[in-house]
Amino acid sequence: MKLASLNHGRDGQLIVVSHDLTQAAHAHDIAPTLQFALDNWVQVEADLAHLYRNLNDGIAEHTFAFNPAHCASPLPRAYQWADGSAYVNHVELVRKARGADMPESFWTDPLIYQGMSDAFLCPTDPISIPDASWGIDFEGEIAIITDDIAMGTRTEEVHGHIKLIMLVNDVSLRNLIPAELGKGFGFFQSKPASSFSPVAVTPDELGENWHDFKLHRPLTVHHNDQLFGEPDAGIDMTFNFAELIQHIAKSRPISAGSIIGSGTVSNKDRSKGSCCIAERRMIETLEQGQPQTPFMQFGDTVRIEMFDQDGHSIFGAIEQQVVKYQHEYAQNDLNRHQPGHH
Amino acid sequence: MKLASLNHGRDGQLIVVSHDLTQAAHAHDIAPTLQFALDNWVQVEADLAHLYRNLNDGIAEHTFAFNPAHCASPLPRAYQWADGSAYVNHVELVRKARGADMPESFWTDPLIYQGMSDAFLCPTDPISIPDASWGIDFEGEIAIITDDIAMGTRTEEVHGHIKLIMLVNDVSLRNLIPAELGKGFGFFQSKPASSFSPVAVTPDELGENWHDFKLHRPLTVHHNDQLFGEPDAGIDMTFNFAELIQHIAKSRPISAGSIIGSGTVSNKDRSKGSCCIAERRMIETLEQGQPQTPFMQFGDTVRIEMFDQDGHSIFGAIEQQVVKYQHEYAQNDLNRHQPGHH
Repeated sequence: MKLASLNHGRDGQLIVVSHDLTQAAHAHDIAPTLQFALDNWVQVEADLAHLYRNLNDGIAEHTFAFNPAHCASPLPRAYQWADGSAYVNHVELVRKARGADMPESFWTDPLIYQGMSDAFLCPTDPISIPDASWGIDFEGEIAIITDDIAMGTRTEEVHGHIKLIMLVNDVSLRNLIPAELGKGFGFFQSKPASSFSPVAVTPDELGENWHDFKLHRPLTVHHNDQLFGEPDAGIDMTFNFAELIQHIAKSRPISAGSIIGSGTVSNKDRSKGSCCIAERRMIETLEQGQPQTPFMQFGDTVRIEMFDQDGHSIFGAIEQQVVKYQHEYAQNDLNRHQPGHH
Repeated sequence: MKLASLNHGRDGQLIVVSHDLTQAAHAHDIAPTLQFALDNWVQVEADLAHLYRNLNDGIAEHTFAFNPAHCASPLPRAYQWADGSAYVNHVELVRKARGADMPESFWTDPLIYQGMSDAFLCPTDPISIPDASWGIDFEGEIAIITDDIAMGTRTEEVHGHIKLIMLVNDVSLRNLIPAELGKGFGFFQSKPASSFSPVAVTPDELGENWHDFKLHRPLTVHHNDQLFGEPDAGIDMTFNFAELIQHIAKSRPISAGSIIGSGTVSNKDRSKGSCCIAERRMIETLEQGQPQTPFMQFGDTVRIEMFDQDGHSIFGAIEQQVVKYQHEYAQNDLNRHQPGHH
């Protein structure tokens, strides 16, 4: 089935979306929010699936036209967003571009960072950043949402724990990364709020395109309406989602509603393009001695989506524009300041 | 006022606790959970404060004896756990012990990592880890819980945004840290679930002990019933909580219910002891050439608390024992395996 959250309140309102993304129906009688549904999946799954079938058959009641612009990310906020870097080809390119070798262990030991999850952007929200010199970039990725998974769970036990799949734009501030990683504590300021595709889908929706814990379809990324990349998410994914889960669960359980990301989708076949500007700049550096493509400027747009064999969008599109963020001083604080303080 | 969460369901049940930690009253008519209260603070604060006054005055109805053993962490799960390393003295010791200089910028640019927050331990839960060779350690810290804070908020604007204060045991797996930080993406497997003090308190509860966005009382840590450290949390805190908030808010808003940690409390005065074993081992390395104190073994205990001037516990105690975690294969997975697979 296909699920989405209307942009209402902190946690959205759960809706079921038809297979062709044209119609929707409120699910609040079954589960008010997607987090509630994930917290109680065993109890709500059959009712949601029933509503989904009726919606597709045109016999559901109180349906309405589905509009991705009214959606929040499927989980507008989450208790966990753990983002991997499973396309090791991409990691190797990063290293090569700065003349560094990649440790052999990177092919066997997954890279994962803990990302902020207290408020995600809506799929069509502007990317609002104060300063374009921070190096604003998109990253097209695949993400899964899990149910509860015990500490110590191994790849052989992951089957059935992946409840939903969606797309991500993991916004990155490239020029803040080197200093931040140099401090040794990982990404923080360099990874602002991410956005997710309007629709999250259960694995069965993907049919043969979902196997070996990977999604085997091209991820289509446009930058300023130009095709930027279309690599196949099922190719060159060194660590599948079962391996990422095993890595995360080594020293802790994973709770229902945890989102796990694949990292930037990347194929060794360079004709497939890239899912982030940084990778294209690395290739330019390797091929031409220096990067040519600038990072995103105010006004730039990005569009991330995935199509099935018949050319139909599976998840709806992430469609965002970069805008300049202007911080407004809180009035009560202004009053406590000297005039001219800022 | 003082708030706690009974250990019930994924988000606990909000209760109000008397100033002396002896009595409690259900708050579910006002807010079912602490996250709900934080999401709607302006609407619920007055009612919670009224109940708290009645409880202290002995005129609240349906009260019951407060028992920390029935508590979850105040937020049993949270949308954000951002942990600083604000006692730079501690960071400098880490570096010195391995013969590395600390960059000067560490005195002016806070270190913060994104921690897991999808399920915290209860204050009296066992610390359940599969392998003691991972180097199990406690870290005694102070943490705050915020309301909504806009991106770009500066220290001058933080006043009023710190809603609650509590203690933390930031459990760390020391022997997993070097390899993990070496990969460049920060802590992940090396930082399993943390636990928090049974009670979270509003800043006004702390009176003169809360000023300059710091908590000015000693943090008392016992390891196996021996006093391990009692450094003053108000001394040598290089970055106060307003500065940590400014750092976090540089490129993103902060959402209600975000927990921000101080990092291991540490005083330059070594007679005050340490709030984690790693720091004592560094001091031993500097003074005796090698560490003497082992990390925690199965059966070891840790107790973290803070007392007011009259010797009364402010937050209740974090009291935990390390136990060996045994992963049980899921039955449905076992059935799919060859005999003898594990």
